[in-house]
Amino acid sequence: MENIVLQSLKSRRSVRAYKPDQITQTELAAVLEAGTYAATGRNKQSPIIVAVQDPAAREQLRRMNAAVMGNPDMDPFYGAPTVLVVLADPAVSTHVEDGALVLGNLMNAAHAVGLASCWIHRAREEFESKEGKALLAKWGIEGEYVGIGHLALGYAAADLPAAAPRKAHYIYRV
Amino acid sequence: MENIVLQSLKSRRSVRAYKPDQITQTELAAVLEAGTYAATGRNKQSPIIVAVQDPAAREQLRRMNAAVMGNPDMDPFYGAPTVLVVLADPAVSTHVEDGALVLGNLMNAAHAVGLASCWIHRAREEFESKEGKALLAKWGIEGEYVGIGHLALGYAAADLPAAAPRKAHYIYRV
Repeated sequence: MENIVLQSLKSRRSVRAYKPDQITQTELAAVLEAGTYAATGRNKQSPIIVAVQDPAAREQLRRMNAAVMGNPDMDPFYGAPTVLVVLADPAVSTHVEDGALVLGNLMNAAHAVGLASCWIHRAREEFESKEGKALLAKWGIEGEYVGIGHLALGYAAADLPAAAPRKAHYIYRV
Repeated sequence: MENIVLQSLKSRRSVRAYKPDQITQTELAAVLEAGTYAATGRNKQSPIIVAVQDPAAREQLRRMNAAVMGNPDMDPFYGAPTVLVVLADPAVSTHVEDGALVLGNLMNAAHAVGLASCWIHRAREEFESKEGKALLAKWGIEGEYVGIGHLALGYAAADLPAAAPRKAHYIYRV
């Protein structure tokens, strides 16, 4: 059984090298919209998505993320010109799973419009810091939010890598 | 910007009423395969997927899940004849996010082949119990696993519901 959607879900790859060119606003809007249609626990829509394209804000995120890694000079976003940040409301018990589903839809939508992406972790550490909380306030985001993940987003600098083999015993049938 | 994949991602719905008819093995295989292609942290592929179609096993899951809810007679899987269980290896720090991404791909793939699905929580509580651990052993699953979620899977008993409105302030741009 095969169709265009299944092929797209299976051919998405995590990409670790991006062109510097910024994506179009049309591409970004399509990706963001699909992200908001991810399932969430009891449809509480606990996540939010911050699309960061301002170079200074992206550099601040890079610095904060690299500091959590203990490698201050590196770019954890692999040169991607857009970084999406997904955070979620910790008052909702399913907020981590909800935020992950949003990131999943963002990744699948990115691939569907010809963009490359990669989930970058350490958002939790970034946004529990004083600097991270100040950044949310500066962005006009009120209330408590936990960082779930970033998505590096841009045009792949090279062909997509082949998929690593799926592990043995991924699937059981009862 | 619109295409078949984006449309599919946006038109998936969580379905809470299923026909009793079992899905085909071809449909199940397509959904499971797409699930294994979800991104996982450092490609560690920390999750596993258990496809439960045996009526006795499904009934045992129903009973365990309903007990966690405190409502022993209800069917938390809404009559779906197939229940997928995603668990993940807690030794991998990203195991909850990884498992959620697998569930997301399973949901999107289900919709892509005309099946309905709904994430059902309480897998964590089920599989941290003695009965849950015994069930994993009976299923031939070795090692430690944490329950991430179930997916009720089947044919929708009615037309898909309309999407609830997306919340205000889902997206921020910087």
